[in-house]
Amino acid sequence: MRSVSIHCTSCGKAHKLDEAIFRCDLCNEPLEIEEISNGRINKGNILTQTIWERYEDFYPFLDKNNRFTLGEGFTPLIEMKDLAYSIGISGLYMKNETQNPTWSFKDRGTAVGIMDAKRLGYKRIGTVSTGNMATSVAAYGAAAGMETFVFVSKDISEEKINPIAMYNPHLIKVEGNYGELYFESLKIGKENNIYFINSDVPMRVEGSKTIAYEICEQLNFQMPDYVIVPTSAGGNIRGIEKGFREFKSCGLIDNVPKIICAQSLGCSPIYNAYYNNSDAITRVEKPHTIAHAIENPYPPSGNQVLRLLKNNGGIATAVTDEEILKAQALMAKEGILGQPASSVPLAAIIKLKEEGFLKGNEKVVCIVTGSGLKYTASFAMHQLYSAECELNELSDYIKENY
Amino acid sequence: MRSVSIHCTSCGKAHKLDEAIFRCDLCNEPLEIEEISNGRINKGNILTQTIWERYEDFYPFLDKNNRFTLGEGFTPLIEMKDLAYSIGISGLYMKNETQNPTWSFKDRGTAVGIMDAKRLGYKRIGTVSTGNMATSVAAYGAAAGMETFVFVSKDISEEKINPIAMYNPHLIKVEGNYGELYFESLKIGKENNIYFINSDVPMRVEGSKTIAYEICEQLNFQMPDYVIVPTSAGGNIRGIEKGFREFKSCGLIDNVPKIICAQSLGCSPIYNAYYNNSDAITRVEKPHTIAHAIENPYPPSGNQVLRLLKNNGGIATAVTDEEILKAQALMAKEGILGQPASSVPLAAIIKLKEEGFLKGNEKVVCIVTGSGLKYTASFAMHQLYSAECELNELSDYIKENY
Repeated sequence: MRSVSIHCTSCGKAHKLDEAIFRCDLCNEPLEIEEISNGRINKGNILTQTIWERYEDFYPFLDKNNRFTLGEGFTPLIEMKDLAYSIGISGLYMKNETQNPTWSFKDRGTAVGIMDAKRLGYKRIGTVSTGNMATSVAAYGAAAGMETFVFVSKDISEEKINPIAMYNPHLIKVEGNYGELYFESLKIGKENNIYFINSDVPMRVEGSKTIAYEICEQLNFQMPDYVIVPTSAGGNIRGIEKGFREFKSCGLIDNVPKIICAQSLGCSPIYNAYYNNSDAITRVEKPHTIAHAIENPYPPSGNQVLRLLKNNGGIATAVTDEEILKAQALMAKEGILGQPASSVPLAAIIKLKEEGFLKGNEKVVCIVTGSGLKYTASFAMHQLYSAECELNELSDYIKENY
Repeated sequence: MRSVSIHCTSCGKAHKLDEAIFRCDLCNEPLEIEEISNGRINKGNILTQTIWERYEDFYPFLDKNNRFTLGEGFTPLIEMKDLAYSIGISGLYMKNETQNPTWSFKDRGTAVGIMDAKRLGYKRIGTVSTGNMATSVAAYGAAAGMETFVFVSKDISEEKINPIAMYNPHLIKVEGNYGELYFESLKIGKENNIYFINSDVPMRVEGSKTIAYEICEQLNFQMPDYVIVPTSAGGNIRGIEKGFREFKSCGLIDNVPKIICAQSLGCSPIYNAYYNNSDAITRVEKPHTIAHAIENPYPPSGNQVLRLLKNNGGIATAVTDEEILKAQALMAKEGILGQPASSVPLAAIIKLKEEGFLKGNEKVVCIVTGSGLKYTASFAMHQLYSAECELNELSDYIKENY
């Protein structure tokens, strides 16, 4: 365990990693751990190795004696040749994060959060979420034997609360301004010795780095032109960009792909600021999108994502619910069933190609963040087909109709 | 591509693999491909290797030019120390098959079925299922560009039909005796050039072998005492047993673990026959269990599973819905949320320990076959807890209550 520096992404102020810290005590912007520039991949048998062992060099701040895993990561990267051809780009890949222990990318950051909480001696963890992150933290907290607090909004639906409750956390429906809860939870955590693994805390960013590492390995270190990330709080896109940056610093790849921040037009605070050439996001007053998993009206890493895009040369874009549903259906017809938020990158590619931003010779990676089974209500928004037939007429029916 | 023999599991009659064959033309019992006894593991980087490449030696009958994958397999094996301790056995491991592309073990066999169908020149595939297998075949058929037929029963619920329909197969609700449809579909397939990848066809058995191969690698070739498989048609348990047997023939492991066939008492045709010392299963007339995914009243590989248990030294057992729900909750509290059928192995372990069959010094592997999100209705059958609190009282509330 080596001490590394952590600094504010905005003002640069250095902080100490020897306590649970999440945001700059000066400007309240998110913190980031220093870039690792001397790491190597531990090339072992993945069947007996965790992602934390394989990429151990990139986590000098984690205690080897406090490793924890439920088998997150090492998810497939699937090439979609037909879809690339029909859209008119040279390569399209889907990083299928639905194949994680709780069926979303959140498990990577949750694992790092748990390990950091254990390192610091915490016995309690928590999170503020009604979706992927809530189930992930509830599952990992339970498995790690931590007392686990999950704050959800009071009007959460049965479909959403039940899978969280199955893992048996302290599940609290909070009445009041749910938008304030992110910042409130950090205070509550301090007062009650609860380590809050919220959406964009430094350790979540560190967890998401592994998505980039794996993509590098899976593409044999030949970088795509773009990586498109559905973006809500901003933790995942920050981690993915940092992962590529670190592999470049370590000489493992030659260049960092351009990052595209993809949002839903029904809630696109980062895209709005990007579009208006602003350095700071403003709160979306009435968010409304089918892509619930990225419906964050005031993303706590929003400003940092804007800075990240500027440094990286990436862009922000946003798509309509209609485009999202169309993309969800297209992906399913290629065998990958993502939740609506996970279809935003494909919708963005189609739009960016139509607008001429993508010329046609690009290779693009989409991050498929969570399983379609997470939000089954979206299925009913599609035109779904089935036929009916009597058993004894079935063979003839097929001959006649197909 | 090397030709291998395929023979009847009951009468031994040899058949030819140069056409789509599923059952013995003499006695109508299931067929099985010859045991591979000279295979080696291709030890490559799993991030750039498919399970079919890693275990290529064990698939001499597959055409390398017709490989197909959506990233199935290489699922985690998670040690559950606390649960083992509280039950009173020396080791407990969960093979988490929910981390597959359509979130169940079915994807392994579907991939092999697709490759076999392609090898034989088929452009159409199909299946008879209302659950995990239906979504798996629909997804893989779509991705492989095959015309895909899925036969479901007429009274299928919305929750079950929608995720299948999302992959856009030819989805046909069949009126009539759904129990007959398995055998009828094989005829319909012949008449209409559709390759039916049903529940226990030889290629599904070949797909499930990889579960055993991975367990061997994950346990560093030190075998557990028992492997417990939730059993419906019998294809998965047959594949897993064959996988261990092949690794032993190849000298990769010293002994084959004993296999436990675990069923739900509400539909336990194999357990019933085993219990009555019968060589043949009889149809369960009124199946009724919460473990829908294994609710097969007349499993087409039932007799072969009985033979397998006799040769292997394994046993059959069955548990109640109440025990299944209790096990589902226990697993979730350790971070793994399986569908009810996937909780049957843990329920079986608890029962077998209480009955004294398990002494306490055993190591046991459970196969967690499918995701809890597949059957969310089961969540409502649990006592789920949540509290309510106003935001400004939250910190005090936690201090007082936890």
